Amino acid sequence: MRKYINDSFPHFLHGGDYNPEQWIANKEIWDEDMRLLGEANCNELTVGIFSWATIEPEEGKYDFSFLDEIIEKIHNAGGKIVLATPTGSRPRWMAEKYPEVLRVAENGQRNLYGTRHNHCYTSPVYREKAAAINRRLAERYGKHPAVVAWHISNEYSGRCYCPLCEEKFREYLRKKFDNDINKLNHAYWSTFWSHNYTSFDQIEFPSSRGETVIHGLNVDFRRFVSEMTIDFMSEEIKALREFSDLPATTNLLRPVYDLDHWKLAKVLDVISWDSYPEWHSPRHENEAYERGFYHDHYRTLKNRPFMLMESAPGLVNWMEFNKLKRPGMDRLAAIQAVAHGSDTVQYFQWRKGRGSSEKFHGAVVDHVGTSDTRVFKAVKATGETLKHIDEICGTMPEVKVALIYDIENRWALDDSQGFCRKNKKYFETVTTYYKAFWKRGITVDIVNAHADLSKYDLVVAPMLYMTDKDTVESFTKYVENGGTLYATYMLGMVDENDLCYLGGFPANGLKDVFGIWNEEIDTLYPQDSALVKCNCGKEFVAKDYCEIVHARGAKVLAEYASEFYAGSPALTVNEYGKGKAYYQTFRDGGDFWDTIAGSILAELDIHGPIKADLPELVTAHQRQDGDDFYLFVENYSGKPVENLSLEGEYIDMETGDKATSVSLGEFDVKIFKKI
Amino acid sequence: MRKYINDSFPHFLHGGDYNPEQWIANKEIWDEDMRLLGEANCNELTVGIFSWATIEPEEGKYDFSFLDEIIEKIHNAGGKIVLATPTGSRPRWMAEKYPEVLRVAENGQRNLYGTRHNHCYTSPVYREKAAAINRRLAERYGKHPAVVAWHISNEYSGRCYCPLCEEKFREYLRKKFDNDINKLNHAYWSTFWSHNYTSFDQIEFPSSRGETVIHGLNVDFRRFVSEMTIDFMSEEIKALREFSDLPATTNLLRPVYDLDHWKLAKVLDVISWDSYPEWHSPRHENEAYERGFYHDHYRTLKNRPFMLMESAPGLVNWMEFNKLKRPGMDRLAAIQAVAHGSDTVQYFQWRKGRGSSEKFHGAVVDHVGTSDTRVFKAVKATGETLKHIDEICGTMPEVKVALIYDIENRWALDDSQGFCRKNKKYFETVTTYYKAFWKRGITVDIVNAHADLSKYDLVVAPMLYMTDKDTVESFTKYVENGGTLYATYMLGMVDENDLCYLGGFPANGLKDVFGIWNEEIDTLYPQDSALVKCNCGKEFVAKDYCEIVHARGAKVLAEYASEFYAGSPALTVNEYGKGKAYYQTFRDGGDFWDTIAGSILAELDIHGPIKADLPELVTAHQRQDGDDFYLFVENYSGKPVENLSLEGEYIDMETGDKATSVSLGEFDVKIFKKI
Amino acid sequence: MRKYINDSFPHFLHGGDYNPEQWIANKEIWDEDMRLLGEANCNELTVGIFSWATIEPEEGKYDFSFLDEIIEKIHNAGGKIVLATPTGSRPRWMAEKYPEVLRVAENGQRNLYGTRHNHCYTSPVYREKAAAINRRLAERYGKHPAVVAWHISNEYSGRCYCPLCEEKFREYLRKKFDNDINKLNHAYWSTFWSHNYTSFDQIEFPSSRGETVIHGLNVDFRRFVSEMTIDFMSEEIKALREFSDLPATTNLLRPVYDLDHWKLAKVLDVISWDSYPEWHSPRHENEAYERGFYHDHYRTLKNRPFMLMESAPGLVNWMEFNKLKRPGMDRLAAIQAVAHGSDTVQYFQWRKGRGSSEKFHGAVVDHVGTSDTRVFKAVKATGETLKHIDEICGTMPEVKVALIYDIENRWALDDSQGFCRKNKKYFETVTTYYKAFWKRGITVDIVNAHADLSKYDLVVAPMLYMTDKDTVESFTKYVENGGTLYATYMLGMVDENDLCYLGGFPANGLKDVFGIWNEEIDTLYPQDSALVKCNCGKEFVAKDYCEIVHARGAKVLAEYASEFYAGSPALTVNEYGKGKAYYQTFRDGGDFWDTIAGSILAELDIHGPIKADLPELVTAHQRQDGDDFYLFVENYSGKPVENLSLEGEYIDMETGDKATSVSLGEFDVKIFKKI
Repeated sequence: MRKYINDSFPHFLHGGDYNPEQWIANKEIWDEDMRLLGEANCNELTVGIFSWATIEPEEGKYDFSFLDEIIEKIHNAGGKIVLATPTGSRPRWMAEKYPEVLRVAENGQRNLYGTRHNHCYTSPVYREKAAAINRRLAERYGKHPAVVAWHISNEYSGRCYCPLCEEKFREYLRKKFDNDINKLNHAYWSTFWSHNYTSFDQIEFPSSRGETVIHGLNVDFRRFVSEMTIDFMSEEIKALREFSDLPATTNLLRPVYDLDHWKLAKVLDVISWDSYPEWHSPRHENEAYERGFYHDHYRTLKNRPFMLMESAPGLVNWMEFNKLKRPGMDRLAAIQAVAHGSDTVQYFQWRKGRGSSEKFHGAVVDHVGTSDTRVFKAVKATGETLKHIDEICGTMPEVKVALIYDIENRWALDDSQGFCRKNKKYFETVTTYYKAFWKRGITVDIVNAHADLSKYDLVVAPMLYMTDKDTVESFTKYVENGGTLYATYMLGMVDENDLCYLGGFPANGLKDVFGIWNEEIDTLYPQDSALVKCNCGKEFVAKDYCEIVHARGAKVLAEYASEFYAGSPALTVNEYGKGKAYYQTFRDGGDFWDTIAGSILAELDIHGPIKADLPELVTAHQRQDGDDFYLFVENYSGKPVENLSLEGEYIDMETGDKATSVSLGEFDVKIFKKI
Repeated sequence: MRKYINDSFPHFLHGGDYNPEQWIANKEIWDEDMRLLGEANCNELTVGIFSWATIEPEEGKYDFSFLDEIIEKIHNAGGKIVLATPTGSRPRWMAEKYPEVLRVAENGQRNLYGTRHNHCYTSPVYREKAAAINRRLAERYGKHPAVVAWHISNEYSGRCYCPLCEEKFREYLRKKFDNDINKLNHAYWSTFWSHNYTSFDQIEFPSSRGETVIHGLNVDFRRFVSEMTIDFMSEEIKALREFSDLPATTNLLRPVYDLDHWKLAKVLDVISWDSYPEWHSPRHENEAYERGFYHDHYRTLKNRPFMLMESAPGLVNWMEFNKLKRPGMDRLAAIQAVAHGSDTVQYFQWRKGRGSSEKFHGAVVDHVGTSDTRVFKAVKATGETLKHIDEICGTMPEVKVALIYDIENRWALDDSQGFCRKNKKYFETVTTYYKAFWKRGITVDIVNAHADLSKYDLVVAPMLYMTDKDTVESFTKYVENGGTLYATYMLGMVDENDLCYLGGFPANGLKDVFGIWNEEIDTLYPQDSALVKCNCGKEFVAKDYCEIVHARGAKVLAEYASEFYAGSPALTVNEYGKGKAYYQTFRDGGDFWDTIAGSILAELDIHGPIKADLPELVTAHQRQDGDDFYLFVENYSGKPVENLSLEGEYIDMETGDKATSVSLGEFDVKIFKKI
Repeated sequence: MRKYINDSFPHFLHGGDYNPEQWIANKEIWDEDMRLLGEANCNELTVGIFSWATIEPEEGKYDFSFLDEIIEKIHNAGGKIVLATPTGSRPRWMAEKYPEVLRVAENGQRNLYGTRHNHCYTSPVYREKAAAINRRLAERYGKHPAVVAWHISNEYSGRCYCPLCEEKFREYLRKKFDNDINKLNHAYWSTFWSHNYTSFDQIEFPSSRGETVIHGLNVDFRRFVSEMTIDFMSEEIKALREFSDLPATTNLLRPVYDLDHWKLAKVLDVISWDSYPEWHSPRHENEAYERGFYHDHYRTLKNRPFMLMESAPGLVNWMEFNKLKRPGMDRLAAIQAVAHGSDTVQYFQWRKGRGSSEKFHGAVVDHVGTSDTRVFKAVKATGETLKHIDEICGTMPEVKVALIYDIENRWALDDSQGFCRKNKKYFETVTTYYKAFWKRGITVDIVNAHADLSKYDLVVAPMLYMTDKDTVESFTKYVENGGTLYATYMLGMVDENDLCYLGGFPANGLKDVFGIWNEEIDTLYPQDSALVKCNCGKEFVAKDYCEIVHARGAKVLAEYASEFYAGSPALTVNEYGKGKAYYQTFRDGGDFWDTIAGSILAELDIHGPIKADLPELVTAHQRQDGDDFYLFVENYSGKPVENLSLEGEYIDMETGDKATSVSLGEFDVKIFKKI
């Protein structure tokens, strides 16, 4: 069963953000845009994102004529529309009349009008104004045949430190701690430094001007900020729902940091995100697999195809160095998203504006205004490919592996005082574990620590410092029932309030599951390293962290071969129930894990669509539905690939030719359907 | 016709800043200073710069006895005086009684009393107090025979964010946009992010707390700050003019950044500046030609001899590393200024103070208080040289080349979001172009984009991102009429409001003048480079920027030989009207330009006073008046130079000997007059 | 005569900070702690440091039951107690009710509740509340047989910018300058930049928002901050003294920066400090001798044994990299303190807390809660050693050398505008001078510039930029009377108000004492160096600073051999009175000084307890009392040491064996008593 973004349009969307209000004085440009849309093989435009000042130029005075006109034009040109609520940026008059809609900074000072967002999510006035305009948009366009989805606001982010928000935070904590200040004191271990609270009224936001050391408070503050953002978004959607049932999405941002995407996903119908890799940079290789990681994360969030809401035609303008995408890269990056489950390829932006901060950001249509540009032609080529592979729309990849990337763990770990204090490298570590799957073409679900693990054959949990009791239980059951769990150093140190577990790490029951006790963790200076010897005979280098772990039932698969802890375990495995639990005690550069992953995957018979080793920076992914099996072969390297065996019979979906092997140019991708 | 600083004293001034109010309790030091003045071969002292608290110790209570006395002493010692208005630093009582004279910082907080400046240029009180004391100074000393010029305030700089200034900014914009908010909205492209203004009252200063992305606003803010500073200065001069016609100058500062020197020069009679190079540092070589650049800039501002108002005897104290100037360097740096058109050599400072932040800044007279120091003797030697070459005073160099360094372009380019975002290297690039002239001894006028170009044989315009319509027209006419124009990547991208030109770069008509269309610009990572092949056969390396340019009529003189744009133009030339327009599409390390410059200069028969190639870090400059031709041969290298041919017959102005060649010691300079 | 921390307990204390209020809900942990105390060979616990919220949960409502109980438990377990006043951190209710107890930051904004300290030392309310609780503590526990000392507050530090403090600062200056604003104006050289004060009411704190350049004000501000902290501490002690005569100490911190320890020591009975070296880091070697320096400093402060109040079992958690101490290091670091005069080895912390910012800081008892850990066993081993060497308690080392490390000089030098502006490296330089003594096992007194020098055979004064008239006199007399004084570049430049001396450096009389005149100082770029040739024939490299000094009577022992000052003195010596005064004109890497130190020490017959050269990172120290002579041989290197001759007959205090030589493992120490 295929799942579509919108069942009324079971096709890939190809288009992007369009700001026609910038050209209201040059409507001939609107008409030219409609003409160019088809020429570019595009079928979608996203409008309304920053139109608030145009459609409500004065408080309560709405003027939809511009939107009416442009929506009809797009519709007439055969385009579909993703329609945005305009709350990503308020009109000036609102900040002028209601200063309380502006955010307050950490230093207590209210911001001035400017930038995007910069509004208080708790502000009753702002919520009222947002709901009012959303309601009108939904009423007017919510059933328009060209409109296929709601784009809620734009890249929600940030936080506000105003008194209203602080009071909401107190409410949040009263609820969490059953209005019992002693529960809070215990959870926050506030006796430390005599910081006991005697009333919820004493709670202030964590601040460099005051309270910084209560890590439980810090992590609850992050939870609260995420919750307030989601609550604001829910109210936006609620207003739309009064008049429209179109699917709702919001465009998420890469850093995956300030928002708990798992909680946010619950109130959305479809996930979409904005992907801006630094191709051809010194971290080009990392980008290749990190993009896979992100796409997998966004697909996993609702376990259905997602939308690539924004990507840059040609280049961006806001990085430190804004390099041109090399020929082929626009198409390869677009199809990479599809290979991981995206059903759209959308750009920021359709046409470059003349002024302000994004005028040099890549666009389908450049300042020159013609289709005779390298970038326009690249977009057109991507559109051509999408047309040929349209039947893939709605399918999903098959997945047997879950990798845990837990945002609450990241918040807690980054905030923790200890280890290497400034840079815990959680994300880098998780993606290093991801890479071993990516290079083998094994699609992975990126889950958080509370996911249902029962459907996976293998679960990998790097650096899961914060392991709450539910997770301890979930891990225990997963292994008992036959699952293979691979965890690393720092597992099970603190509970959900960042309180250390007593009785030895990892937390209670996990010592039995893994058959170990972790006594100490050695943090190395960058200049340091330790030697690790695998039972297989190979040697590896440990960097950054080496735990001194005692095997208590587990079998030792690798040991340290230097430092005062030489001879103590570097990797253990424990048979527990019907499953196995691995524990890696040190940070490796990826080579150790890659070797171990090879053995474990072989044992579990997990592999990618092409089993043979692939050339460096070349990979393959699959999407499928019943008997339909689609194969993507992707080349992120700057070198051509010749005659790679497909290990089966396929049809090249663009040429229609039969194929049992594939050759690829630099930054090339080909898509096949299994015969 | 020679032009003098002050016609009543047609001689070089040699002296510097003197703060006798610091020694009011030790007047024997005043007398010793008068004695040392002559011993040091000095003939000038600049007084009054920070005397406000001494001459107006309480509000409205003036006491000029100290100034009366010191001016008479200097006069009696045969010295000339440059008399300063004291507005560089207010007395404490003024800030205490009128806090509004203190600046407000960007965060909205009013400064406390302290440092220099730190006053609001719009403050009516401050303007009134400044005018009052200036009027009294002019009345009292404006016709004193020893006083030769007014030194207005001191190193004007900085800005204020107070409500008065903000209101002035609104006025400024109302005037610029004819009180039409829609004109402003269009110019600022404010529809972007829904930032439309509906009233001029909504305008706030650009601020990290609010509006940051409206680049048109940002550049107008810089224009406004510059204008307010100039307006304040004009009022200072106006007050003096009620009683005195002495020439007025203000000491400008190196960075050439916050003020539009071209607008400022209009209200001054004479330009002066403070030069503080980092000799003998890792950037010694850059300093050698950058100082030439600055001196040329300051001479060009009013096309007449300028004043080196401040320079450091021996060393400064405020750099990160405060190294001693090596023997010879004091004299060489002084005469370098003269070689480029300075008619003064002045120091900061005559005598080191005992306390506060400049007590370790070099001075003619050190804390030891005697003339028996290395630095005192160096000053004395410079004075000796100046006496021998006094007849050069008032002459000017002959100039055939203009190099465009445009401050508004720099403001816009640095603020632009795109390319390499953090460091555009505009100044470094312009001075790299300058270097090719400097090493050949070719004196260059440093002009802005609105200069009258008709008098030049060659005009060079690097990175002229902001090219307004007047400049487009000026360039077109210049080439049409036979001029040679050499421009580079980024030419003609935006207008004066930082709005991108539509229809392809460079702006409209310039595509015809240069015979090209610039489709894209590739920004390289520092690790990247591209290869460029010249038709001459030589190869060069492109760094940072490579434009993909299409020749549309232009002749291609060099091409890329690597990257996906291999084969596209690296240098083009177009014959247009009676002239030629060159366009360089990439950033080179200076070697490519140096090679091309060699050909172009040969073709145009432009050369320095010595035509032969000079040794590294050795150069030669000329000043002339009718038949009088003066030659300066300068050695910035740490090695002696032997028997360099002068290519003509000269007299060594210090020895009186005839010379056809010259030998120079390390950091040495010799001055010749043509026979 | 031995001097003990507390005569009633003439033994080493071995224990540390204990926070039982964190475990009030788990009293079985208290009992377990009592059991573990003995097992760890510990005999002390420090309690009460952060107990304020527990013992005064509401204003004026005291509840000592928790302290009563825990003190009895410790007493019954045979432990001694160091009892803290709880003022290091206020309860929340105090900040809620009296916001004025919170500090104001430099920007004028009052802090929020949080962190430690963060209280205004001038606040009358805070002083009243502190005195009230201290009085009750003293009344209740001041004569308890288990309590051996008062631990006043915790790591005093920081400053407040509130109006109350600012008014106190004005009072401080009125007193210093006899209420005469002209005296202040002269001392501050405020005429510079017209900053003259006309009233003490105009004085504001130095601030980046205002006054920054008055260096005399800056150094007085530092003196004031130190004085206010000491004044606050004195009031704390005064309150205790109403009921208790126990010795009072406060735990000082490494940086030795914000407080004038010499003034603070006057109001304390015993010195204690918190030592947190970065062992096994890239600066392991520096730590080895720097710790010696610190210990010597703290011993010198009151010329009696001191307390090592805090040290980390195993590791800390707040450094950038928190590496484990290698086996042996805990014991070696503990005994190093003893070797330099400590009579305690105390840890932060006894037991790791579950939450907040120090939960990963090393502790005797880890989260696992057992004695079966590497770290617990290391503490136990240290305790074992301490028992064997207990008779050393109360003795002192013999000292013949003083090294001047002057905090006022450091404040002034760091603040000075000149030289290498950002990093004067005063501390690094002083400790480089120290190292030559440390490696020879020569114990050194670390004094300030106002110490009585008469008892020393050798005094070393590096970089004594600020040399007031008393010091000039003290130096003169010291040399006259036969002392050997070794000073370096920058000696005698400014007086106590940072006013430059006139008449040439070093200050007045010192030119005669040293027989030199210092004309100029050359600051080198990091890339630069100069060559120095010693009369002995060896060559050395000068970095950073080279003074151009003229010998005026002094004998030149070394000269520059490069740069334009080649041939001028690098080291001079002058016979003056019965003594000798050396002057080193440049910064060396330590090798030059080490060579010179060797000659001078030989001449003065000063040596360590082992005269032979010791292996690298191995040293030996002594403590003695009458005929009792104790020898510590310490190995900070990662290599074993074999058969090092002790140059005498000793008994190994741990084994009881006779010994004439010693072998040591990695990071090992052995202690001997002379037979």
